Amino acid sequence: MSKLIKPRTLKGFRDYLPNAMIARETLIDTARSVYRSYGFSPIDTPALEYTEILLGKGGDETDKQLYRFTDHGDRDVALRFDLTIPLARFAAQHYHDLGTPFKRYHIGTVWRGENTQRGRYREFMQCDFDTIGTESNTSDIETLLVIHDLMERIGFERFTIRVNNRLVLNGVLEKQGLTDQTVGVLRALDKLPKIGRDKVITEMVEHVGATAEQASAVLDLAELTGDSATMLASVENMLEGSESGQLGIARLRELFAACSHVGIPDGRIELDLSIARGLDYYTGTIYETFLGDKPEIGSVCSGGRYDNLAGLFTNQKLPGVGASLGLDRLLAAMEMLDMVESASTPAEIFIPQFDAQRLGDYLRLARDLRLAGFTVEVFPEARNLGKQLKYADRKGHKLAVIAGEDEFANDTWQVKNLQVRGEQANVASSELVGHLSKLLRPEN
Amino acid sequence: MSKLIKPRTLKGFRDYLPNAMIARETLIDTARSVYRSYGFSPIDTPALEYTEILLGKGGDETDKQLYRFTDHGDRDVALRFDLTIPLARFAAQHYHDLGTPFKRYHIGTVWRGENTQRGRYREFMQCDFDTIGTESNTSDIETLLVIHDLMERIGFERFTIRVNNRLVLNGVLEKQGLTDQTVGVLRALDKLPKIGRDKVITEMVEHVGATAEQASAVLDLAELTGDSATMLASVENMLEGSESGQLGIARLRELFAACSHVGIPDGRIELDLSIARGLDYYTGTIYETFLGDKPEIGSVCSGGRYDNLAGLFTNQKLPGVGASLGLDRLLAAMEMLDMVESASTPAEIFIPQFDAQRLGDYLRLARDLRLAGFTVEVFPEARNLGKQLKYADRKGHKLAVIAGEDEFANDTWQVKNLQVRGEQANVASSELVGHLSKLLRPEN
Repeated sequence: MSKLIKPRTLKGFRDYLPNAMIARETLIDTARSVYRSYGFSPIDTPALEYTEILLGKGGDETDKQLYRFTDHGDRDVALRFDLTIPLARFAAQHYHDLGTPFKRYHIGTVWRGENTQRGRYREFMQCDFDTIGTESNTSDIETLLVIHDLMERIGFERFTIRVNNRLVLNGVLEKQGLTDQTVGVLRALDKLPKIGRDKVITEMVEHVGATAEQASAVLDLAELTGDSATMLASVENMLEGSESGQLGIARLRELFAACSHVGIPDGRIELDLSIARGLDYYTGTIYETFLGDKPEIGSVCSGGRYDNLAGLFTNQKLPGVGASLGLDRLLAAMEMLDMVESASTPAEIFIPQFDAQRLGDYLRLARDLRLAGFTVEVFPEARNLGKQLKYADRKGHKLAVIAGEDEFANDTWQVKNLQVRGEQANVASSELVGHLSKLLRPEN
Repeated sequence: MSKLIKPRTLKGFRDYLPNAMIARETLIDTARSVYRSYGFSPIDTPALEYTEILLGKGGDETDKQLYRFTDHGDRDVALRFDLTIPLARFAAQHYHDLGTPFKRYHIGTVWRGENTQRGRYREFMQCDFDTIGTESNTSDIETLLVIHDLMERIGFERFTIRVNNRLVLNGVLEKQGLTDQTVGVLRALDKLPKIGRDKVITEMVEHVGATAEQASAVLDLAELTGDSATMLASVENMLEGSESGQLGIARLRELFAACSHVGIPDGRIELDLSIARGLDYYTGTIYETFLGDKPEIGSVCSGGRYDNLAGLFTNQKLPGVGASLGLDRLLAAMEMLDMVESASTPAEIFIPQFDAQRLGDYLRLARDLRLAGFTVEVFPEARNLGKQLKYADRKGHKLAVIAGEDEFANDTWQVKNLQVRGEQANVASSELVGHLSKLLRPEN
């Protein structure tokens, strides 16, 4: 026998075994279903792109992390590292076929040669939705509603979507004469939750060149708390005379009014004037989403409005707004919060092969139950029943439907609850579907 | 303004625009749902593998087509070219966690540097399911049932799954003393539909070294027709004394009996003793699936039983059986047969923004309709109604729900059928959900 090749995966890459993959598919299905319910359409783009399409779009570090090589036709190609650049390329290329506004979702794998010591993976999935080609605040509001419905449909009750608008921050900087120092000021501001007010002010003064007074004014804005109406009234005063600041306030007001009008529960949407994510990219509304029971893991769904998506590929100006669900982070949190089913089979019902001579009957029952909407696995071998049930136990089927000589003679099936020891019943064939429905679909 | 980068995709790669992607997602959903209904579990593996895992497994041509490069850590890596080798590596690596029998489906992208002149793509999706770790014929039968249900659920009524068993072919070759010439004989036999009996015999005689008598005997088997029971009875006589031949006949008999017992309609499963696909790989049952209305496109779902999946990675013997749905081929056929919806939005209902002051009301209605199970898009801008309806027309929404001053005053909505010109009605708010259900879910 020749030498075996060691079966192994690359560092930073991983296999998904059934139980992990079932949880992942469920989460992706939920995201798709919510995106679709708002009229976002699916698209897909190639994993490989010309390197020039991807290069220089995500900063130096991203460039270094590119999986880049020369293909069979001597083309310089690379694996996509996010879904935003491909969307920009796609929108520029197909602009005339798509029309605007254009609403798309894209769920796909991306690759980055990350340092795995930070626990990062080199292959992961992104789950984005965007509305492009419109500046309307309707789309900003809708983005927020999508995030809200998504979190609710995934199964969270306690979560907060924090909202801000870069125009408000810009207004304050404008009023304070700090427009030229925007990047430095916002970078310092980003550290507020970690290092506190005083150190942020010190950094603004020492490294950004603001006066203590200017820095204080920025922090006064960022540290405003209270209900959104009161906060916005205060900000309105602070920003008197700043046109962009007033526009930001008006858009935030409309957003909070709409959320309240459509019935989003109080407390789920919060105005947080300190968030400034995506320094160079976002230009309007900004979103971050925190779990009430796991705030420490950071934002699980983030996004915002941008002025121009595809300026590198087309002269057509494409403003837009969107967000991205942090699939892996969310799955990790759901596991910690015990929100993930542990089954490693999608089948609810297990039919052991008690009597090999009756294989046709087991297969026919399985078929009938599938037509009635159940998921059903028939064990492929007529091993001893204990071993077959041990298999089912390990996989996580909910019920076993068993028949041997006696049951066939009486036209009954034994239904065994695999999750509650000792709970079982003999059920007439004619009543089987009803009985299983009661056990598996009690809500109906 | 700096020079624009030309937005383009690599040769052999393609973007999926919404209408193509919606059709694709629907087909994938159907496949997943059928696989799951039989208890197949999802898995996923990395796009990138160590090259040594992939190399030499698919023959010289596949090796040449590998997207292979050196990664940041100087590893020799390549993109997967199918899902079978990754399954073999996966099964060997996780054998103790998975246990057997193990049933998995895997829907994923694969890459091959194909010659695009033959109309082939370099990136495409595979959609496989397999049962490994058992030699039981139950799994062979189940594989056939999965293919059947899949075709039916996709929407086909006229299709034929052709079945054979390599053991029967082997039995004939054994009886004819042609075992050493198996590959040559089967390669010639594969040409039967194209070149006919006489030329196949000539090839077997001139290039494979069979006598005319031996070649005739093989063709007598391959050309048997009739119902499966009669054919199997004839073959049984031809194969008297061949143990493997008799085993093949017994397994085929059990398969046809089970299909009939569970209620598969006559004519959908056919015994075809001439098919021998996957010369070096398959060792037992073989499946090919042809569309009644498009037989010329070839098999859309093929597979078979193999003796040992992962012999290169483990000494653990892993027999199995499975099949693969030809997603792209099937989608092309469905398009030709007009089985694909042309909408480029997943939203059924379109709500134009007739009056910008009423945005909150439009958003609230949309939310209520989503909670009632509909998919709903609100137009983001308060443009003129004609332009908004033109947008909906282009996207393919089914209904528009419209309200302006009059409707708000009367607490009604105008419901307009966007697919039947002139069909519209004014509906009281309280009756809207019922009215929309009648139009969009007439089956309920």
